[in-house]
Amino acid sequence: MSLSEFETISHYFDSPKLSFAREGITLGIGDDGAVLKPTAGPMSISMDLLVEGVHFPMDGEGFGIGYRALAVNLSDLAAMGAQPLCFTLGLTLNRVEDGWLREFSAGLSQLAQKFDCPLVGGDLTRTQPGSPTVIAIQAHGIHQNRSPVLRSTAEVGDDIYVSGTLGDGAAALVALGIKPHLDGLKGLSAQGLTDSQRENLAAAYYQPQPRVEFALAAGEYMNACIDISDGLAGDIAHILRASKVGADVLLERLPYSEPVKNLLNPQARQQAALYGGDDYELCFTAAKQHADALASLATEVNLPLTKVGEVTTGKSLRLLDSSGDIVNSVGEAYQHFN
Amino acid sequence: MSLSEFETISHYFDSPKLSFAREGITLGIGDDGAVLKPTAGPMSISMDLLVEGVHFPMDGEGFGIGYRALAVNLSDLAAMGAQPLCFTLGLTLNRVEDGWLREFSAGLSQLAQKFDCPLVGGDLTRTQPGSPTVIAIQAHGIHQNRSPVLRSTAEVGDDIYVSGTLGDGAAALVALGIKPHLDGLKGLSAQGLTDSQRENLAAAYYQPQPRVEFALAAGEYMNACIDISDGLAGDIAHILRASKVGADVLLERLPYSEPVKNLLNPQARQQAALYGGDDYELCFTAAKQHADALASLATEVNLPLTKVGEVTTGKSLRLLDSSGDIVNSVGEAYQHFN
Repeated sequence: MSLSEFETISHYFDSPKLSFAREGITLGIGDDGAVLKPTAGPMSISMDLLVEGVHFPMDGEGFGIGYRALAVNLSDLAAMGAQPLCFTLGLTLNRVEDGWLREFSAGLSQLAQKFDCPLVGGDLTRTQPGSPTVIAIQAHGIHQNRSPVLRSTAEVGDDIYVSGTLGDGAAALVALGIKPHLDGLKGLSAQGLTDSQRENLAAAYYQPQPRVEFALAAGEYMNACIDISDGLAGDIAHILRASKVGADVLLERLPYSEPVKNLLNPQARQQAALYGGDDYELCFTAAKQHADALASLATEVNLPLTKVGEVTTGKSLRLLDSSGDIVNSVGEAYQHFN
Repeated sequence: MSLSEFETISHYFDSPKLSFAREGITLGIGDDGAVLKPTAGPMSISMDLLVEGVHFPMDGEGFGIGYRALAVNLSDLAAMGAQPLCFTLGLTLNRVEDGWLREFSAGLSQLAQKFDCPLVGGDLTRTQPGSPTVIAIQAHGIHQNRSPVLRSTAEVGDDIYVSGTLGDGAAALVALGIKPHLDGLKGLSAQGLTDSQRENLAAAYYQPQPRVEFALAAGEYMNACIDISDGLAGDIAHILRASKVGADVLLERLPYSEPVKNLLNPQARQQAALYGGDDYELCFTAAKQHADALASLATEVNLPLTKVGEVTTGKSLRLLDSSGDIVNSVGEAYQHFN
């Protein structure tokens, strides 16, 4: 098969499943640019790159890669408290493989439809065989009734929450047979997992669930928010730096899924949560008086919500054990760049 | 030197020269997303990829690559009739080289400042040595008083214009010693060029001038517009398909620069204009009654403007010689994808 750029776009991407019409979009794929309607409130935009061999495996299956590529961008929108509007895709391919592209497009489509967030444009280019596939996605979200939730507005005394469970992204690497970067996870195998636990972890990796619904419902109670892409420790640290505050986090509070508990011993799971990354849960701060409201909203959308600590007047992140003693950190936040 | 992702962004990109404040931008680099203010009119967005070895040479110098990467995106905004607002950058690097990054950032900055179009966010990732550098840029433009100019709204009887001169992008490949893809340009060398002609062509390649100023002034007279990235023939064909019209183009009208005339014989320069690509001039259609107004505006901004043909009721692009005879096309539009 040898399709031109335009034929490839038309065949795999310019489809009613993926580049569908939506209020707020005047013009999608096919001109020099897409056209968005004037916005009543601010717009948040976020671009993430996924590089083959760095952010997804060389032989990864297309559906999960497409799903994940859009999910991590929608997770950024959730962290801003934005309603997804549309996305663009810049795809650098080393080969045009019908099956992979079909699956990739299906993965994008499933999430695009779920969040009413169509593909509106982008670019497609070929590179040499052997060069990695590079996926650049920019997601655009709108704020109709409320201001964006920033990293820089945490307040002393706020509770610190995380959604969902932590460490699944790092544990998924073990389940998928991908080399983990954390010492505590090296040498582990997925043999102790049941099939369904392995599937759950693979899904956590390839199909992380952007917490858009919860973020839109709970945004009014949040003072600051970030999505957990590099591990809880590093991502909380971003909030602390931006807000010029400190935080105490109680390690025994960190929430884990059954597969993570099964696969990782207590020390390894703590390392996975703090420094593993790829969890795409939300970490946010909120004034104590909103605790009940937040718990109700989390129950409504069926999302575990855990208070893990508190914003302090300090200048750093302190990790406390069950006795309240400060635990030395055991690693560093994962940095995809290094 | 070994900088983290955050240090690299901070060092080379989060600077007053590049990520400066601008009306319309609430929040730039440093959160999960950038925040744009509500827009009074529509917003045009355009994403272009530039891949090392495909869109720029492996050993290309950073300044020109940065300049060009932003220029081709601003050229898309010009083709929409949009005022540049801001851009995002997704950069996949196989190495962190201080000199190159400094120059790359300076190239971006020069154009960003010229068009008041700051960097507001993006992503940075490392890939394996030997893998190509991939630059993804998305530009955002606003339309305050006027609708976007589309490809799909050309009208029968419109004049067809091109800005500037054509074929410089293809001839520049010869001047730069890069293998051209057009048969008529193979085997040519830059030996016949003066130093200043060679410099002019190198500048045409690395520093194409997005026709933003002219597009904003003349947009009200344009019925349809596209920027010439793949050669005039292919790009006019996009307008014709989208507008469901035909066109006659008079080949003797095609405008050439002195370096192109010097380097290429008449047949080669025609091929370069029609199928060469990388010119980043505007091709647009306008009702005949606006001819004088357009000529005046072009003079005001010191931009050559040439009427090269007319929109017809036909279904295809006809290339006519000086006798009015239809000339067979001699090649195909350049497709970066193949």
